[in-house]
Amino acid sequence: MAYFENIKPVKFEGANSSNPFSFKFYNPEEKVGNKTMEEHLRFAVSYWHTFTFDGSDPFGSGNMKRPWDYLKGMDLAKARVEAAFEFFEKMNVPYFCFHDIDIAPEGDNLKGTLENLDTVVDMIEEYMKTSKTKLLWNTANMFTHPRFVHGAATSNNADVYAHAAAKVKKGLEIGKRLGGENYVFWGGREGYETLLNTDMKLELDNLGRFFHMAVDYAKEIGFDAQFLIEPKPQEPTKHQYDFDVATGLSFLQKYDLQDHFKFNIEANHATLAGHTFEHELRTARINGMLGSVDANQGDTLLGWDTDEFPTDLYSTTLAMYEILKNDGLGRGGLNFDAKVRRGSFEADDLFHAHIAGMDSFAVGLRVAHRLIEDKVLDNFVADRYASFSEGIGKDIVEGKADFHSLEKYALELGDIQHKSGRQEFLKATINQHLLQEFAK
Amino acid sequence: MAYFENIKPVKFEGANSSNPFSFKFYNPEEKVGNKTMEEHLRFAVSYWHTFTFDGSDPFGSGNMKRPWDYLKGMDLAKARVEAAFEFFEKMNVPYFCFHDIDIAPEGDNLKGTLENLDTVVDMIEEYMKTSKTKLLWNTANMFTHPRFVHGAATSNNADVYAHAAAKVKKGLEIGKRLGGENYVFWGGREGYETLLNTDMKLELDNLGRFFHMAVDYAKEIGFDAQFLIEPKPQEPTKHQYDFDVATGLSFLQKYDLQDHFKFNIEANHATLAGHTFEHELRTARINGMLGSVDANQGDTLLGWDTDEFPTDLYSTTLAMYEILKNDGLGRGGLNFDAKVRRGSFEADDLFHAHIAGMDSFAVGLRVAHRLIEDKVLDNFVADRYASFSEGIGKDIVEGKADFHSLEKYALELGDIQHKSGRQEFLKATINQHLLQEFAK
Amino acid sequence: MAYFENIKPVKFEGANSSNPFSFKFYNPEEKVGNKTMEEHLRFAVSYWHTFTFDGSDPFGSGNMKRPWDYLKGMDLAKARVEAAFEFFEKMNVPYFCFHDIDIAPEGDNLKGTLENLDTVVDMIEEYMKTSKTKLLWNTANMFTHPRFVHGAATSNNADVYAHAAAKVKKGLEIGKRLGGENYVFWGGREGYETLLNTDMKLELDNLGRFFHMAVDYAKEIGFDAQFLIEPKPQEPTKHQYDFDVATGLSFLQKYDLQDHFKFNIEANHATLAGHTFEHELRTARINGMLGSVDANQGDTLLGWDTDEFPTDLYSTTLAMYEILKNDGLGRGGLNFDAKVRRGSFEADDLFHAHIAGMDSFAVGLRVAHRLIEDKVLDNFVADRYASFSEGIGKDIVEGKADFHSLEKYALELGDIQHKSGRQEFLKATINQHLLQEFAK
Amino acid sequence: MAYFENIKPVKFEGANSSNPFSFKFYNPEEKVGNKTMEEHLRFAVSYWHTFTFDGSDPFGSGNMKRPWDYLKGMDLAKARVEAAFEFFEKMNVPYFCFHDIDIAPEGDNLKGTLENLDTVVDMIEEYMKTSKTKLLWNTANMFTHPRFVHGAATSNNADVYAHAAAKVKKGLEIGKRLGGENYVFWGGREGYETLLNTDMKLELDNLGRFFHMAVDYAKEIGFDAQFLIEPKPQEPTKHQYDFDVATGLSFLQKYDLQDHFKFNIEANHATLAGHTFEHELRTARINGMLGSVDANQGDTLLGWDTDEFPTDLYSTTLAMYEILKNDGLGRGGLNFDAKVRRGSFEADDLFHAHIAGMDSFAVGLRVAHRLIEDKVLDNFVADRYASFSEGIGKDIVEGKADFHSLEKYALELGDIQHKSGRQEFLKATINQHLLQEFAK
Repeated sequence: MAYFENIKPVKFEGANSSNPFSFKFYNPEEKVGNKTMEEHLRFAVSYWHTFTFDGSDPFGSGNMKRPWDYLKGMDLAKARVEAAFEFFEKMNVPYFCFHDIDIAPEGDNLKGTLENLDTVVDMIEEYMKTSKTKLLWNTANMFTHPRFVHGAATSNNADVYAHAAAKVKKGLEIGKRLGGENYVFWGGREGYETLLNTDMKLELDNLGRFFHMAVDYAKEIGFDAQFLIEPKPQEPTKHQYDFDVATGLSFLQKYDLQDHFKFNIEANHATLAGHTFEHELRTARINGMLGSVDANQGDTLLGWDTDEFPTDLYSTTLAMYEILKNDGLGRGGLNFDAKVRRGSFEADDLFHAHIAGMDSFAVGLRVAHRLIEDKVLDNFVADRYASFSEGIGKDIVEGKADFHSLEKYALELGDIQHKSGRQEFLKATINQHLLQEFAK
Repeated sequence: MAYFENIKPVKFEGANSSNPFSFKFYNPEEKVGNKTMEEHLRFAVSYWHTFTFDGSDPFGSGNMKRPWDYLKGMDLAKARVEAAFEFFEKMNVPYFCFHDIDIAPEGDNLKGTLENLDTVVDMIEEYMKTSKTKLLWNTANMFTHPRFVHGAATSNNADVYAHAAAKVKKGLEIGKRLGGENYVFWGGREGYETLLNTDMKLELDNLGRFFHMAVDYAKEIGFDAQFLIEPKPQEPTKHQYDFDVATGLSFLQKYDLQDHFKFNIEANHATLAGHTFEHELRTARINGMLGSVDANQGDTLLGWDTDEFPTDLYSTTLAMYEILKNDGLGRGGLNFDAKVRRGSFEADDLFHAHIAGMDSFAVGLRVAHRLIEDKVLDNFVADRYASFSEGIGKDIVEGKADFHSLEKYALELGDIQHKSGRQEFLKATINQHLLQEFAK
Repeated sequence: MAYFENIKPVKFEGANSSNPFSFKFYNPEEKVGNKTMEEHLRFAVSYWHTFTFDGSDPFGSGNMKRPWDYLKGMDLAKARVEAAFEFFEKMNVPYFCFHDIDIAPEGDNLKGTLENLDTVVDMIEEYMKTSKTKLLWNTANMFTHPRFVHGAATSNNADVYAHAAAKVKKGLEIGKRLGGENYVFWGGREGYETLLNTDMKLELDNLGRFFHMAVDYAKEIGFDAQFLIEPKPQEPTKHQYDFDVATGLSFLQKYDLQDHFKFNIEANHATLAGHTFEHELRTARINGMLGSVDANQGDTLLGWDTDEFPTDLYSTTLAMYEILKNDGLGRGGLNFDAKVRRGSFEADDLFHAHIAGMDSFAVGLRVAHRLIEDKVLDNFVADRYASFSEGIGKDIVEGKADFHSLEKYALELGDIQHKSGRQEFLKATINQHLLQEFAK
Repeated sequence: MAYFENIKPVKFEGANSSNPFSFKFYNPEEKVGNKTMEEHLRFAVSYWHTFTFDGSDPFGSGNMKRPWDYLKGMDLAKARVEAAFEFFEKMNVPYFCFHDIDIAPEGDNLKGTLENLDTVVDMIEEYMKTSKTKLLWNTANMFTHPRFVHGAATSNNADVYAHAAAKVKKGLEIGKRLGGENYVFWGGREGYETLLNTDMKLELDNLGRFFHMAVDYAKEIGFDAQFLIEPKPQEPTKHQYDFDVATGLSFLQKYDLQDHFKFNIEANHATLAGHTFEHELRTARINGMLGSVDANQGDTLLGWDTDEFPTDLYSTTLAMYEILKNDGLGRGGLNFDAKVRRGSFEADDLFHAHIAGMDSFAVGLRVAHRLIEDKVLDNFVADRYASFSEGIGKDIVEGKADFHSLEKYALELGDIQHKSGRQEFLKATINQHLLQEFAK
């Protein structure tokens, strides 16, 4: 392990010392409520952004400086595995995630590709025997190669559909081998560029069939990972079928898949769809569908997927609030689906960025925990909806009211009295809790 | 009938003469396929934008000049009915739509409000005996009055919920009396301003209960109108629960309401949600849920609901394409939920604007009909998806494939061959059909 | 003074006690650097949002509950003055701002309007004799009345232009009488709805002439207030001429007005134009044009002007950073151009909201001051641009380089070495300073 | 010339026959007014999108199928030149445009890069001797290579600044050799990722110095091309300095460069900045700064730079309206800065796409010409602003009014009379002219 030996630990003044790198707020062993930070947060490193991403963008070629840059092909793939486990250890993270092509290059044909995967998975399996870091989830990349230009499970081309099935079949097998706790489906090109050439119904029906086959195959091989759909509204295609949580939920219900899937929710995908991160988390939570999180953030003044490391403490606080209210993420975790900015091209930045993200979620966890412990919002909400706990409101909730009884009640009412929603007060309260939590 | 007698007919060069006002492209009696334009398009005038809207905006007070401006209260309400039927006749439109408070002012209390409604509905009923213009749909306004500040069927206040039920009960009764073909639910404040004070699950459960009560009551009184949900992502609230068609469909499935509702789709609401108008129509169509249309357009460079009259011929063509593919709108129609711009404050503009909209949809109808007749897109799409009509593709569609058979097939494939999606060619084709249809 | 006597002070745990209302972070007398918080922040209350706004929005009628609601006309206007000074005293704010029609209703004609203004200005002048609260700026509302439907100084109608001139003339006179430190021009309808009917050049030329006349008149009457342009990209019109700071600067240069104006920068207007608040402040600052600030915030997922009270501590910190780097705002200040949300309709919310905003800027001030004192960003930036302090870089900055010398230098260079921009590290640093400042 | 010999001419029904490829609406020799279509439209092919672009996007690798794909390095560069002139001839276009690295690969160092350029420029020069196709403009790509990660003329690194100078020096020399009519500056990374690490003032000052050096060097070598700034608000950087035309104009005025530059306006860049294409054209036109056009279109529901081929006839009509009102583009032209969609990966699509674009602008030209000839908008506008042609309005325009004379006039006015802006009527009028122009 030598890829990162020249990285200088980030020295924050007053940082805690329980970690080779000096976090300011994250301490894996510190208890928050009845669990440690590590148990609550279940951080995962994204293989693609951390070990594969080269910094290229639509107007620029790759510029990241990585110690393994001089290698190629399978040698490069193997070096990345070595570097990855070195990084996992240095960062002391409990999980990682990958797409198939992140870890091994495509071969000359599908057979060769699957063989390359086997070789690297062997190596990863070996590393995992002595590493604390486990597989949060794996997935199949079905968007980068030109064969997926018109989609994968929603392609107009049955050959591509079959190829995609073979890749997911392999992905499930790999997940089982490596003890993956979840398996993710992100439909990178499952959508359309223009309705003018698209049979939307056939494509969605085919997608439903594909997911059923995946469910069946996982059952067949005894792979009991949680299956996750990851919504995204657009990019790379003009319009993706899994636009947001509600759209995904509509699809899962229609195709009778809702008992087999939950959602992997990404902050930046939420904002691209016009929602806050916490809206998507809440929507999934109240439907019992909150599975896992891609922890990043976007730039709401830009219309593309910037996948920045999460540093907005409001966002991490409100996200952790939903997660704690969900009794945690179960088998899911907080995967840093985040890339360093193109200007942050040094290997040091990988450490800075993960520390920034982990510290930000540690703050979010602590503040959210305090908000819940102190019932700051719960009491306000309980009082606000009190009218549904008695009288006509109780009748409504219990299904005892109808339009006759409600009309009768309404006709007897005088002016209806309201209470303020107190948005400004509640926002100030969040600020106070944020700053107070660290005022010692 | 004298409100509009000084309006000068709009004289377009070469306009057809079958109408007192000189449309250029719309001729109600002209056949397009096996139906007349009037039968295809089922235009409706929106009472609120045409007879009630005063031109105010967040930075300006009312400025519309209307012949009935000098009146107040019930006198004003009655004058508007007279003006409305004069307008309907002059424009020769088959339908109109209204909210309860468009036609009658609120009284001192709910009882008074219902009485005012009865008075004006009597008058409308009388007019309808001799008018060709029928009621496309009515609805209850549950967003303007301060009592709805925190929502109606999703209010935190059970009193408001009851009041809302009484209003919808009355709305259903009015719909039945006036022969309404549909009844619309638009959740003007059914959503939230901030999650910090919101019990989203209770609010949505209550909304589900409310819709079931409405279904039950309509059944009880024998009102067999089509029920319609109208999606909108935001405005007036920060986030509305019926964000878009997919979100609405998810809700209807969860609360087992999908057999009782279809969608009323508004162009401007589609764009606010990040979709094209045709996307929303297509999504509803392939799910058998396309009910009716609010025909307007937004400005995609502005983030609010401009509700402009529809003049974009691309949009009207692609909308009519979906509608024709749906075998029409059934009991639904094309309601001009569109307001003249604040700068178009003269009564003449009401005529100009409706003519602009009706002509634009007439063009859209003719071009879409031609595209379908000539199978311009159908043939392209059929060829594009041909691989699903035979071999492995047919197996997939027929449910005979699984991951084993697909993997076996994929391993034997060589390089996968693709065809171009031809987006540029298809867009040029639309342009040619648009211009060619009128090149005679 | 009795309007707000039933308002309960907001009791924040641990709030400082130097104020009748319990701020948590704002203490007017506390020193930050060499000035007190009050001197740094120069808070102003907006008359319109606080005393005139009724809560109406495009889908809802007024719902704010105010103690003076029962009054009308000039009685209402006078009651608002009383309430205003009671509020100023309770909140202990040093400044207020108003539009002409905020303080006095229009009369039957222009003469009557000016007389109403005189009456109320007399009353305000009297109150100001004993109040600590001074006039930060006043302005003329030239967007609400129907006469301004097509603009004011950019109207197509010369009569409107003349009327607007009379209003601004009066505004300057009032500003002089009341000792206003600035005078603001916000072009509420100076823009266009559609280019199809617009002579953009004539309108802009007329606007340039209007501003020169204003400059001349202020000089004539000896009113030496700072003149301010307030950029906004859209709303109410589709496109406003003073889109953002850069657009305003282009206009001022073209019409030779740059020595007479600075900018009043509003956070929500910045985001509507696609900029961050700090971008607009920086752009103005480095051009010596940062005049004053409308302190509010928008919702970047919504496309309209929400004018929320500022509570985002990142935004207040980065804003105060620019302001401190500007050596303060000079005669400008932080005007809360912010309205309570429609759901916050109680008079208490006015206090909550101002406290939330003032506390947020107090936090921003303290964190920004610390960042500057510790040279956290300055040192990083100095190091980053060091190459322009010597050698070829120094030649460039000093104007000694040309394409020949630069090409010669470049041809002799080997691979160019870069340093990371460290965006993630810097964002984590901001978080640490935010939390650390209050960690005592 | 053999690269495109298997391309099948696109056969549109009724296409004109004067061209080997069958345009429907574009006929280079057809007169519109006193010039031919070719003279009016001055179409240019973009070298990068047509011969260099490989179809990659942030989620996908290159997929375009090109006959020269099997080549590498300088062989590839030369093959592209051959293919380019074959394409120019087949399409019969009068102009082309390129960045330096489009035509020749970088060498091992700057010297090698310049030598590669010389070799390919020799070859292009030879082709141009017998081709009708001329150079509309060339430019230097200063955004793709990692050295430009922090910008070029606004880099924090003086070495990069020098390197950029050498590239532009060479670009000017190449432009002179090849008879380029314009030279373009697009600041692909001239902007910032975060203000936290940015010295905005130094960067802008350096940019001003850079442009002055370029002006000086062009003068020195006798290269009299029109210099063009191309605004873009964001992408690839978070915020670009040349946000839009107004921002560019502000910069040019401040640095005293306005006499040496005009604007190259791109449709998609306009919409990303929140403007319509025609807004940017109008802003440049009325300031005498309309230089050239990058003819493409974006998708206003997506937030990134899709660079689609222009097919929206409203946009081409309103663009040509501004261009005709400008008496044409002078030395500028209509450059198709547009790429085929990733799904349109066949070489045939290059022809389809250019034909789609050229036909769309031919329609726009004809409709715009007719609108101007018939004074459809001019008469409306003249009438609308008539009040500035006499009386007080004339005084205002002639600089004879002041606040005293305007107030006096305003006090004597009764109610101000307005006319409707007739937006709906004007939009219907555009539709009628669009369809009528082709109704024969």
